[in-house]
Amino acid sequence: MSHEQFIIRAIELAYQAKAKGNEPFGAVLVKNDVIVAEGENEIVTLNDPSAHAESLLLRTYCQTQQLNKPWLEGYTLYSNVEPCMMCCGAAHWANISRIVYSLSQQDLKAISDSDPKASATELLKSMGSNISVISGIAVEQGLKVFENYRFD
Amino acid sequence: MSHEQFIIRAIELAYQAKAKGNEPFGAVLVKNDVIVAEGENEIVTLNDPSAHAESLLLRTYCQTQQLNKPWLEGYTLYSNVEPCMMCCGAAHWANISRIVYSLSQQDLKAISDSDPKASATELLKSMGSNISVISGIAVEQGLKVFENYRFD
Repeated sequence: MSHEQFIIRAIELAYQAKAKGNEPFGAVLVKNDVIVAEGENEIVTLNDPSAHAESLLLRTYCQTQQLNKPWLEGYTLYSNVEPCMMCCGAAHWANISRIVYSLSQQDLKAISDSDPKASATELLKSMGSNISVISGIAVEQGLKVFENYRFD
Repeated sequence: MSHEQFIIRAIELAYQAKAKGNEPFGAVLVKNDVIVAEGENEIVTLNDPSAHAESLLLRTYCQTQQLNKPWLEGYTLYSNVEPCMMCCGAAHWANISRIVYSLSQQDLKAISDSDPKASATELLKSMGSNISVISGIAVEQGLKVFENYRFD
């Protein structure tokens, strides 16, 4: 499967989150070209401000597996939007090898009045992390999720 | 109660975590001068690399309360060590008003060969967060937790 196909699945999960009243963010975890876990934003349904798709996916997956350090080496995390500081931190501690996303924080800022956020690449660098980052996959489809979405 | 008393409790929780084979980090959540929740590192016991004391405390507390945005406004998070990027992100999303800690990342670096990490203040600034930060409380007791501790 291609980066685009995994991102499209993350986007589907973002729609699914939105349909449940959560924020429109989704993520998938991939190893050896196979999706091993999926996550969606559950801030509202879990009453947990840290229940971002990526963080939730990572914590849930690790807790259900026989893993040890380096936890998720060789895994790729796909997300419909560039992960925030919290999720980059979680990815770093989980030893994720790669992050791939559709929309950047800049793309999101262009369609909302949200505060500017540091880029995942900068944040990961500040952690001394060597996670590789690929961006800008399926941006057109990524943007559609946020049509008529009210940021707060 | 004073900042020092809350930090001392966070340090006790760090010892407790260490005794269980987890990493020596503890945190308490305070509102109106009363501890409303306590957390300790549970990375090993939960098999979850994101189970830092602060993040775990925040997610657990919010999920068990009738809270809504701005989630934890008016609350202070006390930690025995300056929170990492992931935990600063979680504190930001949880709308924590204040973070108080004992040892800084620099203090920790001075007693280990860990990578240098960005400061909580810098990280929070990059999120556009207005969480206030107080540091350097009970440093002598804070350092004792890490005596004979092997960082990896």
